[in-house]
Amino acid sequence: LNIALLAGDGIGPEVIDQAVKVSDAVAAKFGHEINWTPALTGAAAIDAVGEPYPDATHEVCVAADAVLFGAIGHPRFDNDPSAKVRPEQGLLKMRQKLGLFANVRPTFTFPSLIDKSPLKKERIEGTDLVFLRELTGGIYFGKRGREDNDNTAYDTCTYTRAEVERLARKGFEMAMQRSKKLCCVDKANVLETSRLWRETVQKLEKEYPEVQVSYEFVDAVAMRLVQWPSSYDVLITENLFGDILTDEASVISGSMGLMPSASLGEKTSLFEPIHGSYPQAAGKDIANPLATVLSAAMMFETAFSLKDEAEAIREVVNKSLSEGVVTEDLADGGKAYKTSEVGDWLA
Amino acid sequence: LNIALLAGDGIGPEVIDQAVKVSDAVAAKFGHEINWTPALTGAAAIDAVGEPYPDATHEVCVAADAVLFGAIGHPRFDNDPSAKVRPEQGLLKMRQKLGLFANVRPTFTFPSLIDKSPLKKERIEGTDLVFLRELTGGIYFGKRGREDNDNTAYDTCTYTRAEVERLARKGFEMAMQRSKKLCCVDKANVLETSRLWRETVQKLEKEYPEVQVSYEFVDAVAMRLVQWPSSYDVLITENLFGDILTDEASVISGSMGLMPSASLGEKTSLFEPIHGSYPQAAGKDIANPLATVLSAAMMFETAFSLKDEAEAIREVVNKSLSEGVVTEDLADGGKAYKTSEVGDWLA
Ligand SMILES: CC(C)[C@H](C(=O)O)[C@@H](O)C(=O)O
Ligand SMILES: CC(C)[C@H](C(=O)O)[C@@H](O)C(=O)O
Repeated sequence: LNIALLAGDGIGPEVIDQAVKVSDAVAAKFGHEINWTPALTGAAAIDAVGEPYPDATHEVCVAADAVLFGAIGHPRFDNDPSAKVRPEQGLLKMRQKLGLFANVRPTFTFPSLIDKSPLKKERIEGTDLVFLRELTGGIYFGKRGREDNDNTAYDTCTYTRAEVERLARKGFEMAMQRSKKLCCVDKANVLETSRLWRETVQKLEKEYPEVQVSYEFVDAVAMRLVQWPSSYDVLITENLFGDILTDEASVISGSMGLMPSASLGEKTSLFEPIHGSYPQAAGKDIANPLATVLSAAMMFETAFSLKDEAEAIREVVNKSLSEGVVTEDLADGGKAYKTSEVGDWLA
Repeated sequence: LNIALLAGDGIGPEVIDQAVKVSDAVAAKFGHEINWTPALTGAAAIDAVGEPYPDATHEVCVAADAVLFGAIGHPRFDNDPSAKVRPEQGLLKMRQKLGLFANVRPTFTFPSLIDKSPLKKERIEGTDLVFLRELTGGIYFGKRGREDNDNTAYDTCTYTRAEVERLARKGFEMAMQRSKKLCCVDKANVLETSRLWRETVQKLEKEYPEVQVSYEFVDAVAMRLVQWPSSYDVLITENLFGDILTDEASVISGSMGLMPSASLGEKTSLFEPIHGSYPQAAGKDIANPLATVLSAAMMFETAFSLKDEAEAIREVVNKSLSEGVVTEDLADGGKAYKTSEVGDWLA
């Protein structure tokens, strides 16, 4: 298994280390060999070569079968959105150059963590949903600029039928493997791009007659996610709505520090924890590595179709939670293990 | 006081009736006379004259000092986003033609209703925030269409410095009257329009040195609203972000059925409950009129600078809550009063 390893910034390197240990252990157990190729991204890459997603890194990713990613971002860039080179640009460039068009963001609950949710227990219990966010189109990549003597700014949101169809198709396929419920999130009462989304999804309905499709406006979904998150299963949406809603969804479960994600392309795919680079904790060996370890599980299952391997990782993660082998964020007065200790235990 | 009265669809007429009773009572007590001029909007107007915001209605609004609005929307239009005439178009046309550029959406809690929040008590307690959403610009009103043989759709988000400044200025003024904290919500790490927002707000900071301004990305706000809503005070944002976030904010308090709103223009302003037309309840005399009554209070205070009158309305609403003179949605096993009975009692 050829895997590009992008540790990134902040706690990225530490949590990635644990995912490597666990992946190597599971590979050994099941008789695979992993070939890891590290490469630079984010602030670390800016410091080294002046670019957040250097060509050399891109080549490593293209040559690999999958990419395992930590986190990027550094406070030094935070209050300067107009800085010429920013770690986030690397993220967008990487998504575009690798063609990672489908961002898969599950939100589920761990019984032992349900009390950490800001929502009442009866609201959050049973929540198990997954967002498919379009990641390489829309207003993120449309034409933008200034006009009228710098007094007017504009951004353009563009979608082609093909872009929508390829994302929606993934949504239907995912729904078929889950409970056959799909929600298309848009703003078709206002936006032309949303009307194209709706049309395209409506056409696909005929190919997947078993899937029950609903269409909801983005503002309504923003409400229902807080009110009745367990009523959702698979949700598909465009890039910007997905940015907002997947983040909203991530905090409702109380398990944000454990949520993995995948970004799928035609040729390669990338796996990363949804949490950020958490610079305050960097280097302290205290960050929770579970989201990254669970991202490795997603990688085994999604990139390599190795289901048992993925399941083995998920099982040991559940065991670490039930036996309390966890970092300080989950310790709840019990013993707080170090990042590296949790990784060793899991491996 | 010359007030245009747009009852609209569904439960609109019933809740508006109660607000009229209460407004008339408070006007009598304080020695004012209200001149109400009813006019058609929404599905009701489509049925009558084929248009959701007829010119005749616009003339009534322009001639009035303020507009009191119920709700619009009818299920018959719901699953047909491409229908030629839709009630929502009336809403957008009304906002634009009346120049209602600033939508004021408070979210606060009533101690007696806090248990209705989907959030845990300790998360929601003390929440008292207000969104200022730009309402006549952005991607709602930019150029949109199809290209490439109907295979590509686009929408354009445009903002001018003047549009941003006028909204932001209202935000600073509101912050000065509250706790002097202002949050500018944008996506300046991606969007050019957001960078224009940030620049413009940064410039205004100098004119309001007492206001403490923070800049947050829309995805981060979508999270923090669920996690720590009480940490916010005044938030300003563009049209589409405001659509999503104000709806998200509305459900966290547990008092959605009580939340009023105002839409301010240079010449006139409009006041309406944030809830919808709730067609299932229409004509049954069961809908909760309090959000509309509190919208009338906002109208007295904001459109007519009549603070005592507004306070009198708020006081009697609080009394109805503490004495349990409420509709079935708030009755909690106690007696459920009719919409009209609550209105009579308040008046
Ligand atoms: C950093 C930013 C450009 C990025 C996005 O908006 O896509 C982030 O918020 C995310 O969701 O991965
Ligand atoms: C009905 C729709 C066009 C409208 C909007 O998006 O502005 C509504 O959601 C609102 O927030 O008032």
